[in-house]
Amino acid sequence: MEKNNVTRDSANRPTTHPCPPDHSDGNGVFPVCPVPHAANQTIQMAHGGGGRRSRELLENCFLSAFANPALNFLHDGAVLEVGEETLAFSTDSHVVSPLFFPGGDIGKLAVWGTVNDLLMCGAQPLWLSAGFILEEGLPMETLQRVVDSMRTAALESGVTLVTGDTKVVDRGKGDGLYINTSGIGRIACREVGPARIRPGDAVLISGDLARHGIAVMALREGLDFENEIASDCACLARPVQALFEAGIDVHCLRDLTRGGLASALVEIATDTCMDCRIEETSISVDPTVRGACELLGLDPLHVANEGRFVAFLPPEQAEKACSILATFESSVAIIGTVTPSSPDTRGRVILKSPIGVDRIVDMLSGEQLPRIC
Amino acid sequence: MEKNNVTRDSANRPTTHPCPPDHSDGNGVFPVCPVPHAANQTIQMAHGGGGRRSRELLENCFLSAFANPALNFLHDGAVLEVGEETLAFSTDSHVVSPLFFPGGDIGKLAVWGTVNDLLMCGAQPLWLSAGFILEEGLPMETLQRVVDSMRTAALESGVTLVTGDTKVVDRGKGDGLYINTSGIGRIACREVGPARIRPGDAVLISGDLARHGIAVMALREGLDFENEIASDCACLARPVQALFEAGIDVHCLRDLTRGGLASALVEIATDTCMDCRIEETSISVDPTVRGACELLGLDPLHVANEGRFVAFLPPEQAEKACSILATFESSVAIIGTVTPSSPDTRGRVILKSPIGVDRIVDMLSGEQLPRIC
Repeated sequence: MEKNNVTRDSANRPTTHPCPPDHSDGNGVFPVCPVPHAANQTIQMAHGGGGRRSRELLENCFLSAFANPALNFLHDGAVLEVGEETLAFSTDSHVVSPLFFPGGDIGKLAVWGTVNDLLMCGAQPLWLSAGFILEEGLPMETLQRVVDSMRTAALESGVTLVTGDTKVVDRGKGDGLYINTSGIGRIACREVGPARIRPGDAVLISGDLARHGIAVMALREGLDFENEIASDCACLARPVQALFEAGIDVHCLRDLTRGGLASALVEIATDTCMDCRIEETSISVDPTVRGACELLGLDPLHVANEGRFVAFLPPEQAEKACSILATFESSVAIIGTVTPSSPDTRGRVILKSPIGVDRIVDMLSGEQLPRIC
Repeated sequence: MEKNNVTRDSANRPTTHPCPPDHSDGNGVFPVCPVPHAANQTIQMAHGGGGRRSRELLENCFLSAFANPALNFLHDGAVLEVGEETLAFSTDSHVVSPLFFPGGDIGKLAVWGTVNDLLMCGAQPLWLSAGFILEEGLPMETLQRVVDSMRTAALESGVTLVTGDTKVVDRGKGDGLYINTSGIGRIACREVGPARIRPGDAVLISGDLARHGIAVMALREGLDFENEIASDCACLARPVQALFEAGIDVHCLRDLTRGGLASALVEIATDTCMDCRIEETSISVDPTVRGACELLGLDPLHVANEGRFVAFLPPEQAEKACSILATFESSVAIIGTVTPSSPDTRGRVILKSPIGVDRIVDMLSGEQLPRIC
């Protein structure tokens, strides 16, 4: 039985969007924002951070302009019907700084970022486009390294780069290079997305958190740790395909990029109007990464990853899914469960701390780690 | 009968690429380039100009890395088979400066640029993605104007924006905003592309030349002409669809963007190993635009357009095609014909001047009009 007055169709999808996203405290009261109004009238770094400001920009500027049933600005890709086929279509621009970092580079991010977004739609990634914006003066050798890295990344993930474009901007109007990739994938038969999430679903994460953000940030800030922190940057094709091949009835997948686990779960909770209850002790963070987070004043839940995803699936399949994912990555864990939200709140993310205290997890309002992907 | 030793299959396609593009004078001698070697080792503005440098970058860096049968970096889009359907897939980044200019803005360019590329593949444009790279400090009102313009442009061309992404870069690492759009279109039944060009084909252009480049350049340089020059920026869906609906057997289409008519024809001549003979007197350039070109030392053949295309089609259908296109734009003209290239040369573009002298048209080596689209 629904407890939050949401009407649903036979497939348990909300028949109208039951709770258009707002950012009130659940009682219609908006938090007071310390940023002066004038600052809202220009683009701030926080608008690109994957947190609340990003979401506001999308809702206020883009969604209102381009409203249509297929539009999926807020999720990983759009689902399109072409004849008898169902395709996923996704796009991502990459502006990471610096271009090369322990564990990856902008080329790998650009290929795997879009490949992973297609996988999160339940699609088999097939084709990519690449649009390069190069800054005058970029060493040709740098471009070649990035292109070689993209080539390797594409081969590894089984996608083919089929079309591209190159633009050059004058010195001082870019930062070396920016890359957009867009991708097309084929969705076989399963629908994967927030609409399939049910109360009782188990919530899994596919590895430890916060490596990518901390690896880039440490390099950028010149921080030197005893053990080098490498990005988790990876193609998620093999673990995701392994889940499907084993017959796991995956309800929803989401990769944990900008905004980290917190943003991903808050978005899903908001969109489904269901609560997501997770346990902090189940979430693995490497000790060096945790130390770096403490040093930098960052919460690992908000830090970007580039090779981790969260999966929602039937609780009876959770253990099996964990063992499958554990063959690819250690620290795979069932971190929580989906529950109906109480009638007086919208979907929330509730984190139980190690001492047993519940706290509400929210998206970041400001910018924590700029240009992380 | 082939006169240039090219082997062809039953559909008259080269069975192997008969003349891998080189930039020699036809006898294997490369022109001496006055640019010192060191300059080749960094990205120059000319690498984004759509001329020879752009082509070199594509061939040397991208094509060698991503070689695969579907790759269509040099043309307007890739053609993909999905089940029973044939799709076109195209991408373009837009970095035009300034963002708004007489006759258009970056939003219209971004939507129509990709829509037009899909049309040039013989596809009906269906879906677009949009990737925004915003510079910190961009006025929100500017972004809203651009987004509103994209919305109108998408409505006008019948495409739906289905997925998007926004990144923010720090102040001084961008120039307001850059937009990538990628698009998917459906190819009904006709193959349209250089492989279908035949000796004897008529060459048509869909209007007068050089408006876009001069409109942007005049604004940027603060040039004031008696009659304002507006960009030709337009969606080409209606004229292109009118050709198909009238049963014109269009062999090849190419929009005349960066690098202008010259680059488009040289690329096609090179790729087909056929000559393209055109007459300067048939090519229309508005007197104010021509005056501006002379003032700025520009050849209208090399100046960018954003609403013009060249069509290759059977000569017996050329007049009919002209009358169809003339309902959308004045100055539509048959400007020349395709001929087999002589055995000792690769495909060339030969322009007959008003006084009857032939000259070889080539791509530009340097940069003429940076950041024009």
